Amino acid sequence: MKLTFLGTGAGVPSKERNVTSIVLHLMNKENNMWLFDCGEATQHQILHSSVKITKINKIFITHTHGDHLYGLPGLLSSRSFQGATTPLTIYAPKGVSAFIESALSVSQTFLTYSLEVLEVNETGVLFNGEDAKVTVGTLDHGVLSLGFRVEQRDTPGSLLMDKVTKAGIPSGPHLKELKSAREVTLPDGRTVNGKEFIGPPQKGKSVTILGDTRHTKNLFPLASDVDTLVHESTFAKSEEALAQAYFHSTASQAAALAKEAGVRQLILTHISPRYQDSHILAEEARALFPNTYVASDFSTFLI
Amino acid sequence: MKLTFLGTGAGVPSKERNVTSIVLHLMNKENNMWLFDCGEATQHQILHSSVKITKINKIFITHTHGDHLYGLPGLLSSRSFQGATTPLTIYAPKGVSAFIESALSVSQTFLTYSLEVLEVNETGVLFNGEDAKVTVGTLDHGVLSLGFRVEQRDTPGSLLMDKVTKAGIPSGPHLKELKSAREVTLPDGRTVNGKEFIGPPQKGKSVTILGDTRHTKNLFPLASDVDTLVHESTFAKSEEALAQAYFHSTASQAAALAKEAGVRQLILTHISPRYQDSHILAEEARALFPNTYVASDFSTFLI
Repeated sequence: MKLTFLGTGAGVPSKERNVTSIVLHLMNKENNMWLFDCGEATQHQILHSSVKITKINKIFITHTHGDHLYGLPGLLSSRSFQGATTPLTIYAPKGVSAFIESALSVSQTFLTYSLEVLEVNETGVLFNGEDAKVTVGTLDHGVLSLGFRVEQRDTPGSLLMDKVTKAGIPSGPHLKELKSAREVTLPDGRTVNGKEFIGPPQKGKSVTILGDTRHTKNLFPLASDVDTLVHESTFAKSEEALAQAYFHSTASQAAALAKEAGVRQLILTHISPRYQDSHILAEEARALFPNTYVASDFSTFLI
Repeated sequence: MKLTFLGTGAGVPSKERNVTSIVLHLMNKENNMWLFDCGEATQHQILHSSVKITKINKIFITHTHGDHLYGLPGLLSSRSFQGATTPLTIYAPKGVSAFIESALSVSQTFLTYSLEVLEVNETGVLFNGEDAKVTVGTLDHGVLSLGFRVEQRDTPGSLLMDKVTKAGIPSGPHLKELKSAREVTLPDGRTVNGKEFIGPPQKGKSVTILGDTRHTKNLFPLASDVDTLVHESTFAKSEEALAQAYFHSTASQAAALAKEAGVRQLILTHISPRYQDSHILAEEARALFPNTYVASDFSTFLI
């Protein structure tokens, strides 16, 4: 999978960072993309990226603050303008559905695709789909704020061609059956078990994307043992009191979670405009958790 | 007065043109700015211009299509984030008030200033203020679309100092009274009439900004004899049938109105993304009305 950060700023857009939006490229057969949050001008950022608006088939909204939400009406309209016909599902806290309805209704916008807005009311498994399982948890941000843990399915092992050749098994349609780990009768009459010719399954990757939050123990199960943790870092350690007061986190708090949860990689985003130079945030976090990156707009990370 | 075009594209944003928004700088004592339409990412464009979001005290929405409206929630929020306390008035068709309310309510945004949204239901004089008179008319766009004619007040003539000196009138506080065109008794006992020492009043400038529209006779009284006419030009003449079908205008139609209405300057905007090169639109219009310009994002024009 691949992450593309479309907006990495906090609160208001600046010349350097747009407000929040992140794309998770599933890199599956359909090349689907999932959008996490949709601040104003997310569709504008997409114009300058490799993201295809018509390939976005799921949108997850972490919370309803404007800097995570106000780009939705324009993005939905433009997806329609581009003639998309594939369905789109939005997972969001209460209120988002009414906001979308108000925007599309006042502008008399009729979508070319079916749109479903699902209100997220419960924590736990949100869905267990063909490509990945998504689990949702609540954070600590004054308003309902969600974190999403995405776990890609394991890929079945591939056929060990060396072993197949060594056993004198010729090419043919039975190889496909072998790959399915079934018992197969070969053209020469032998019966072999596919399981013996298949390598170990490839473990699916995992990523957790958190909405705005204060440091809270709720974060641990969402982040535990994931490959990549995307965590807000609105403030530096010197502003810990501000972070607490405004329900946000510092870089050090994010790193402490990454370390405790045993993640492989930490990406900081949602950076306050006060940090024109974000090195201080990276340094602070790396002191606790070395494998930390501060995302910029258009940063991409392979997971 | 001065016009700054923040977005000059039609329908959807492109890399070259953002969706519609225009600022009229009144260049009055308070340096007030009036915004006409507010497509998505208008506040982002403002970051790259000389426009001050806190100086915008009136917003006029021509119609409720998303490309003229979806930037409003973000702009209102950011005006608050910047600590503005001066009141803001929005003049808009029905529905805009509910859309704003929905956006501010879902995001729990509380403004630092007083916001009044006035529904425009009638044509004629919208208001006759200290700086200018604004008249509104309806256009032809399938949905209610408005055009606004802004007429600056005439400025009183200035004191003719040459004449004052020649009449042997010394400096002093009586000069201020003379400037008010009143009878004044001078220190030497003479009585003079201020009217004789004042030049002719300076005529206020005028500009008409039209929303999306087909060619219709309603446009004439709005545009008649203004200094500057801002007219949509979604299409070229070769697409006149498309313009008619989608309730838009061609460059030639805009120029025909400019000529008939006797305006001084025509500015074309709301250009379809199909015209990467807008020269064809300028040429078509200039064939009928030579003093035509095609606006680009960040173009400014003195009126």
